[in-house]
Order: sequence, then structure tokens, then C-alpha cells
Amino acid sequence: MLNFSFVNPTQIHFGQGQIACLSSNIPQDTKVLVVYGGGSIKKNGVYEQVCEALNGHSWGEFAGIEPNPSYQTCMQAVDMVKQNGYDFILAVGGGSVIDGCKFIAAAALFDGEPWDILGKGAEVKSALPLGVVLTLPATGSESNSFSVVSNKDTNDKLPFATPLVQPKFAVLDPDVMKTLPERQLANGVVDAFVHTMEQYLTYPVNAKVQDRFAEGLLLTLMEEGPKVFDKDVSYDVRANVMWSATMALNGLIGAGVPQDWGTHMIGHEITAVYGLDHAQTLAIVLPRLMEEQKETKREKILQYAQRVLGLDTTNPDEAIALAIKKTEMFFHDVKMPTRLSDYGLGEEVADKIVLQLERHGMTALGEHQAVTLEKSRQILIRSV
Amino acid sequence: MLNFSFVNPTQIHFGQGQIACLSSNIPQDTKVLVVYGGGSIKKNGVYEQVCEALNGHSWGEFAGIEPNPSYQTCMQAVDMVKQNGYDFILAVGGGSVIDGCKFIAAAALFDGEPWDILGKGAEVKSALPLGVVLTLPATGSESNSFSVVSNKDTNDKLPFATPLVQPKFAVLDPDVMKTLPERQLANGVVDAFVHTMEQYLTYPVNAKVQDRFAEGLLLTLMEEGPKVFDKDVSYDVRANVMWSATMALNGLIGAGVPQDWGTHMIGHEITAVYGLDHAQTLAIVLPRLMEEQKETKREKILQYAQRVLGLDTTNPDEAIALAIKKTEMFFHDVKMPTRLSDYGLGEEVADKIVLQLERHGMTALGEHQAVTLEKSRQILIRSV
Repeated sequence: MLNFSFVNPTQIHFGQGQIACLSSNIPQDTKVLVVYGGGSIKKNGVYEQVCEALNGHSWGEFAGIEPNPSYQTCMQAVDMVKQNGYDFILAVGGGSVIDGCKFIAAAALFDGEPWDILGKGAEVKSALPLGVVLTLPATGSESNSFSVVSNKDTNDKLPFATPLVQPKFAVLDPDVMKTLPERQLANGVVDAFVHTMEQYLTYPVNAKVQDRFAEGLLLTLMEEGPKVFDKDVSYDVRANVMWSATMALNGLIGAGVPQDWGTHMIGHEITAVYGLDHAQTLAIVLPRLMEEQKETKREKILQYAQRVLGLDTTNPDEAIALAIKKTEMFFHDVKMPTRLSDYGLGEEVADKIVLQLERHGMTALGEHQAVTLEKSRQILIRSV
Repeated sequence: MLNFSFVNPTQIHFGQGQIACLSSNIPQDTKVLVVYGGGSIKKNGVYEQVCEALNGHSWGEFAGIEPNPSYQTCMQAVDMVKQNGYDFILAVGGGSVIDGCKFIAAAALFDGEPWDILGKGAEVKSALPLGVVLTLPATGSESNSFSVVSNKDTNDKLPFATPLVQPKFAVLDPDVMKTLPERQLANGVVDAFVHTMEQYLTYPVNAKVQDRFAEGLLLTLMEEGPKVFDKDVSYDVRANVMWSATMALNGLIGAGVPQDWGTHMIGHEITAVYGLDHAQTLAIVLPRLMEEQKETKREKILQYAQRVLGLDTTNPDEAIALAIKKTEMFFHDVKMPTRLSDYGLGEEVADKIVLQLERHGMTALGEHQAVTLEKSRQILIRSV
């Protein structure tokens, strides 16, 4: 096991009806900016619940944070914060809204050009406090300190992270999943699954608790994920998926183990250039990255094959091939395509994405830094 | 899954050499009281590491917190805090030292008779900040808000809990386990195992993540626990046991599921009256409580039999009997007796402990409140 430091200070309120607890979780004397996305919260009852819980607070709202939140839109919210003196941000949405709000919270107090937080890794020294009402289980952004924001003008999709933007609290009511469209449900399940794999499928360091926790999340997502598309599915199925997604990226399963994140780095570039949803890119890249790295990941793929997929590993090479195939089949089970050609894309993607990776310094990806630009190219060509 | 709120704000620093990080985790302008137990930290190098890390801080020390920390001893430390103006408590020890320090931290600022915190559940309104250097993985006290303190004059062993005494940070260096005596290692493994069982072995609420995390801890403790007695065992074995013990009682696996704690309530009384170590009492009570409650716990015992013990559950009654037997065998594997008679005690224990339970209002224990005083008596008689 590797040395680690770990803490997660986000207060989770999980379950039906928990949105009501907003009233006691946001200080009375703050001026709250409620930030959301395309307006689905006005159709599914979440907006009304938030309004009711904020009764007595001073608050305003900013709508229109898009999927893959853009720097340009976030800066409009930053202007609103500055003009009106908001001092608490409440994100009501999925990972894109939350990521956008993290940037807004930091940019509002940033001394200088806020793009530098993303483009130059400029240090964030303060941020407005942030709370979350989660409407889409997927990214884990509700209880971590990471954010990814895109610049539409330059095709950059870049991350930043600081404990200063970690949400103070997150409300997780699985009932919000009832009205989610299939595409968003699929995105959520795949995103949570791949987050787990990025921290699990590397090389063994005899970290038994972390491995078993990761396997528990993978098993749960594989069992419950395909069920969430049924409108009449039980509350518990939604609850299990929602809690898995949060646990998949709150720092716990990655503490003390090597991590990969190669699939994410390649995927981010595909989204930046071609506009595919984040999870759509992950489902394309992961199986091919597993194939490309099947020797360096050999022991962990076999452990995954045995413990998560229940495969016989007597013939290891067969088991590895089958494990990759079953991973791809799972993505299909949650209505997620796994090929670039499913989106009308071909081999031309490879050169373009490799150029992007090079431009962003991603010339050696993965837990061993073994995925060179040439290997990324091979992964992309095989992904067609 | 049940609704829940969960947060764990304790910053964990895990691994070899992490004691050095004390220097940056304790504010420079505080006056630190280092509190420890019987002095083993002066033989195993921990005391020297702490001294070195505190170089530059203003600090003093209080030695002599005993196993099952006593109100009387803790109050001596409280006097020392008040007389010398200490404003940060650093617990260097296992669960007893940490529990004692939680009480010291609260009692030092308590307005009134501090015993009332334990005896009357008086509200704790403030507490000194507390940090921990863990020397014995067992209780999980290093990252939770619970404390149990005993009154030697009255044979009371009573709990209190408040977020105000949750440690700000905890340093977990598995190397401290190298010099632990067998009895303490056995206590630690059994304590962590039973903590997990108290939150797992109840009735199913379809909380798949919590169940699998609990099973992961049980499996890890069963695999690694028996190995820790070998002085030449690898670092990773100790690390896995230490991390399991912390995760077993930091609130995570118990969030959103029913909990039992009957074994603990009966065990506490045995310790209070007969002085057995905490974990010794748990190993005696749990198997007999499982037998007594095998119908109410039926589904979860079968899940445990299958997923943790790998038993064939085709004949459920046989599987349940074997699961209980194997649990007891595991305790023996970690050098822990499981009978009152192993300590020279007999049936006379039953009446005495039942009286204690009655006196403390523990007339109906467990997740269904189904363990009446008469059932507790039966459990104790069968434990001889």
C-alpha cells in the first residue's frame, strides 16, 4: 500500500426528501446564487423543492450552465456574483453544473484573469462557499475538489482542483433520477464505472480494502446500472447507483493505490474536439486501452475477471480477453455505444486527438506513463 | 436503503514516517498537551518521533491513561490542562487513550460537573481541538466522534458522542504495530471485526455498497488478522489491518443501514464488572448473540456465510450453524478465547450483567430491540 493523506469534508445528506435540509445547511445571513443548467429542474419538481427550502433566505438564480461547462458561460455567472454581492453558490444539477460552480466560486474571488486557473494552473487562494443539490449521479463532483471547464473558443477542456471549492454539503435524493432521460442515466452509470476502473485497474500494491471497495462499486454498478432505465424500478436501485457514483470519486478508493486516468485524458480531448458526451468517450476508450495495456495491467485485469465478473481464470489470456469483452457488453447493457463509428467518426480522429494530447502535455499517460502518443494513436484507431 | 447524513472531517495521514507531519498539522501558536498511556511509546520509538515532530511547539505531557480510561485519571489531565493553559490535545495511543482524550477535551471546557457528560448525557458545547497518533489499530476512535469512559468508583462504563471531539487529524503508521504484544494485536483485530458485524449483520435493506464495503473489511480482517502475530510479516499486512480498523468505525459502512450494537452493550458491562478487555468480551458475546438472534438475522447471516465465508448455503440452517462456528474459529485464529470460562467465570455472570444492563436502561438491545433482558441472560449463560 502506498502512503496517503485522505479527508472528505463534504457533509452528505442522502435520501428521499433531503432537499428540505437546505434551509439549515446554508447560513441564514448569506446571499445565495442558485446555479443550474438547461431548466429540467423546473419540470421534475426539484426547483420547487429548492425554492421552498430557501424560503427566508436571500437568493437569486443563474440558468444555462451547459454540458461540459464553458468558461464563457461561467464568467457570465461570475459577473452576476460580483454585481449583486452573492456570497454562497448553490449548484443544482449534475457534474457539469457543479464543475461550473466550482470555477465560478473560485473565479469570483480571483485576483487576475480567471482563465489562468485552468490554462496556467494559477493558484486559487480563496473561493465562495459552495453547496450542491445533485440531480444526476455520475461524476462524484458533489463531494470532491475537482472541476473540468471547457473553453469553446480554443477547444480546451482543462481541469483544476483545490480543497477550497469542495462542496460544504451535498444533497443526494435518488428520486431525482426518475425523470432523467436515458442518455443521462447511461452517462452516469458509465462515468461512475470508469472512475472506479481508473483507480482500480492498474497494478497490485496489496491494498486489500481499497481493492474490495472498488470491486464492490463495480459489482453494484453492473447489477443495478442496467435496471435504472425502467421507470418502475425500486427506489433502492436508484439509491445504490447514486451512492456508488459518489463513492467512486470522493478520494477514498484511490487513497494509497496507483491511479491511471489515461482513459479520461484521451476522452477529454474527444469531447473537446467532437462534442461527444464525457461518458460516451470513456466507453469508447476504456476497452481499447485495456487491450493496449493488457500486459502492464495483467494482474489486476485477472483479479477483476475473477472477483467482479466471476470468470474462470485458469487460462489467463482467455480470461483477459473475455473480461474486456464483458466490460464492453456491460456498456451496451446500459445503452452506451463503444465505437467511434457509432458517432460517425473514423480513423481521422486519431491524428487530431494525438495533436491535442501533445498540445496539452499528455505525452505519457497511465500509472506507468506507458501510454505514449503512439499508443494513444493505436488505441484511437482500434476504437473506430 | 435508509436515509442518512454522513461526513467524516478527520484528516488521515497514513503510512510509514507520517508522524513527522505532526509539525504542520498542529497550529504553531498552540500549547500542546501530549497524552499517552502506560509508556510503551517510550520503548517503540513513537515518543521520540513525536518529540522530534513537535520541536518548535510549546508542549507538555500527561502519562497514565489506562485501558478502559477512567474518569478519575482523565480528570487529573483536565486539571493539568486548566492549570497550564493547554489548548490542543495530542492523543498518542490506542482507543483508550483517544477516548480518554475526547473526554479531557470536552471536560476541560465544560461548565459544571464533567461526569454529567457521561452520567446524564449533558450537552457538550465546546471542546479543545484534538489530534491523534494511533499506536493500536482497533477502535476506530481516531476518526469518529465516540468515546467510552469508565467510573472506577461506580462500575459504570458509559459512552458520549459529539462532533466537537472528533479528531482534526489522525496519523496512522502501520509500523507502530511491530512492537505490540499479542494480546493487543488480538484485541485490535477482533474489535474491528465486531464493529463491522454490528453494522452489517442485521437485516437487509438492499444497501449494496454498504454491504460490500462491510464484507470487504470482514474478508480483509479474516485474511490478514491471523498473520499480524508474525514479527516478520510484511508492511502491507499491518497496513491492511490498520486501514480496516479505521474504516470499520468511521461512520461510512453504517450510513443508511440498520445497526445492532447489542454485543457491545453486553460486552461493556462485562468489562465494567469483571475487567476483561473490551475485545475479549466481544468475542465471547457475538457468537452466542448470533445463535440467539439467528432467525431475526437469518438473511444477513446467510449473505455473510456465502460472500464472506464462501459457504454453500443450499441447506440454510446448516450454513448458519457453520457460519457461527467459523466466526468463533476466526477469533481462535487470532488468539482470542470465546468463553467466559476461559477467564474463570461461570453462570453467576448472567445475573450480575443483567442487573447492570437494567440499571443502564439496556432492556431491549439490537436492531429490532428484540434482545430483552431475558435473552441477554440466555446469551450470557450460553457463553460460559
